Amino acid sequence: MKNLITDVPGVRVGNAQDARAATGATVAVFEGGAVAGVATLGGAPGSRAVSLLEPEMMRGRIDAVVLSGGSLFGLDAAGGATSVLVAGGHGGTFGGITLPVAVQAILFDLTNGGEKDWLRAPMECRPPYWELGRDAALAASDAFALGTAGAGYGATTVNLKGGLGSASARTSQGFTVGGLVAVNAVGAATIGDGPHFWAGAYEQGQEFGGLGWPARLPASALGLRFKGLPAPATATTIALVATDATLSKPACKRLAIMANDGLARALRPVHAPNDGDTVFAAATCRGAAAEEPPALTELGAVAADCLARAIARGVHAATALPFANAVPDWQQRFGAGRPSGLP
Amino acid sequence: MKNLITDVPGVRVGNAQDARAATGATVAVFEGGAVAGVATLGGAPGSRAVSLLEPEMMRGRIDAVVLSGGSLFGLDAAGGATSVLVAGGHGGTFGGITLPVAVQAILFDLTNGGEKDWLRAPMECRPPYWELGRDAALAASDAFALGTAGAGYGATTVNLKGGLGSASARTSQGFTVGGLVAVNAVGAATIGDGPHFWAGAYEQGQEFGGLGWPARLPASALGLRFKGLPAPATATTIALVATDATLSKPACKRLAIMANDGLARALRPVHAPNDGDTVFAAATCRGAAAEEPPALTELGAVAADCLARAIARGVHAATALPFANAVPDWQQRFGAGRPSGLP
Repeated sequence: MKNLITDVPGVRVGNAQDARAATGATVAVFEGGAVAGVATLGGAPGSRAVSLLEPEMMRGRIDAVVLSGGSLFGLDAAGGATSVLVAGGHGGTFGGITLPVAVQAILFDLTNGGEKDWLRAPMECRPPYWELGRDAALAASDAFALGTAGAGYGATTVNLKGGLGSASARTSQGFTVGGLVAVNAVGAATIGDGPHFWAGAYEQGQEFGGLGWPARLPASALGLRFKGLPAPATATTIALVATDATLSKPACKRLAIMANDGLARALRPVHAPNDGDTVFAAATCRGAAAEEPPALTELGAVAADCLARAIARGVHAATALPFANAVPDWQQRFGAGRPSGLP
Repeated sequence: MKNLITDVPGVRVGNAQDARAATGATVAVFEGGAVAGVATLGGAPGSRAVSLLEPEMMRGRIDAVVLSGGSLFGLDAAGGATSVLVAGGHGGTFGGITLPVAVQAILFDLTNGGEKDWLRAPMECRPPYWELGRDAALAASDAFALGTAGAGYGATTVNLKGGLGSASARTSQGFTVGGLVAVNAVGAATIGDGPHFWAGAYEQGQEFGGLGWPARLPASALGLRFKGLPAPATATTIALVATDATLSKPACKRLAIMANDGLARALRPVHAPNDGDTVFAAATCRGAAAEEPPALTELGAVAADCLARAIARGVHAATALPFANAVPDWQQRFGAGRPSGLP
């Protein structure tokens, strides 16, 4: 186990980033496809090809989940990923045409630094996301970077640099579950002004520093901090959970809904009006059926744990962007190499 | 009144097409934005940025609706349209960034002829849809072509060439309503083997030939014909209705649901498992509120009529593609210049 979503057999993940624009994309590819669902709990989502995931829709399997920065501009990324999927022979066949399905969600990183030249000169400069989606799909493998990488490249939380996180686990029935998340939260992943993560209770080993849960909650613990005070701002945490269990589309939607609870436990606040928080759930169906409780209940609980852990890992691994006024990273604020003067 | 959706003040429409690839895109731009909703009644939809249209989501206004061919590849078109919207200063402002919203639905025209080189050589040839979306948005004006144009360029029905259609009307309260549709139906717009349209009862003047309703239904009227016999095939009819009334997002969703009834009346069958049938509804909110019945009921009924008429107009105006085995157009089969030997 690598403690990545790629521990789920048949799931590969690739990142691509544009350092100048300070943004990126992450693509999860399912070898042989996956049954999938989505639960969109943020109030300002941006998505592509998600209508077909609803249980009353016919399409049975998808081939990739794309997470990217760029807000609505980022929705080009699934196009680039789709070209790679076509080249790789992915997808179902319709009238002799092989048509892979890449579904996508985006996060808002347009104001986190970097040169967004397509906003200044929209008829001369094309947004980089189609190429980022293509390159991330081309890079898909069993190993990928966490932190300031892929869709997490330009991501932030209200107080610390956000990033890309992942984690995995096995259920009591032997199913593998993995989580992948780009943390660009409206709120905080850490408790008050301290170094502890809200997800501390769920930590496995020292996967995000080993501080665990604080012995005593700081007085600042419940002080509410979020992006957009005083002016409204947009954020968004987007995620995927995957399992090798065999699930139907309705069960995948149930899994996506339960997995959102991992966001609730690791971020405060989350699922806000200007968030586009979206969680995809994908079942590669290589293992036994887990369609009913208690198997599906356990999958959902473990998926939520994986996402909570992945969120903390993404923030813990992130490095600040090299811009003036960039949000500091967890290591700068709380790590061994922190500058003096910081707690 | 031009009998086009652009009779609704503030709505402009542009087409772009790629004759070699036999596909295209149509973009409706809302000057000053529009409140919008969507109702997706087909079983295999492809869409972009539609999650934000749901009534529980925050985004209040959109700037454009994009209809295009290309199935899931076509979803790049909203990206190109968005660049034009940025250049034109459209969209709300978030953290100093002007962010226009272009929502999109696609239809499946990949097997209707034309050179889809990006399917053969996906790493060398990029799909043309980003450029088609850009060019259609650049072409947006009060007048636009119907028939084999824009998103209707590669469209077909089971027995006749499909195409782009539009129609408009005024309600008793003085609201203007317009419909825009790309007819790529799984079924037929005409009754049995004859020239009459199912939408004949709703015809205004001679907007689609003036044949009206047949005096006597032909014996073939209810013979069921649809694409995908014996092998499954995909189709899709995608549409927009717009009004100058002031509506909330929930009322726009209600309008989109009622407008789907225009598809039901003009096409048989429709809303099928392999259809992606999607209807957007947009309110420019330049007129009085029409939030409640009976005003909203009348808007919905008139919007459905407009879409039924627009469907017949789109088929009536279409010209067959210049490919061997291309589906014939209505004029060839039933028009004044039809070859002898055809009815």
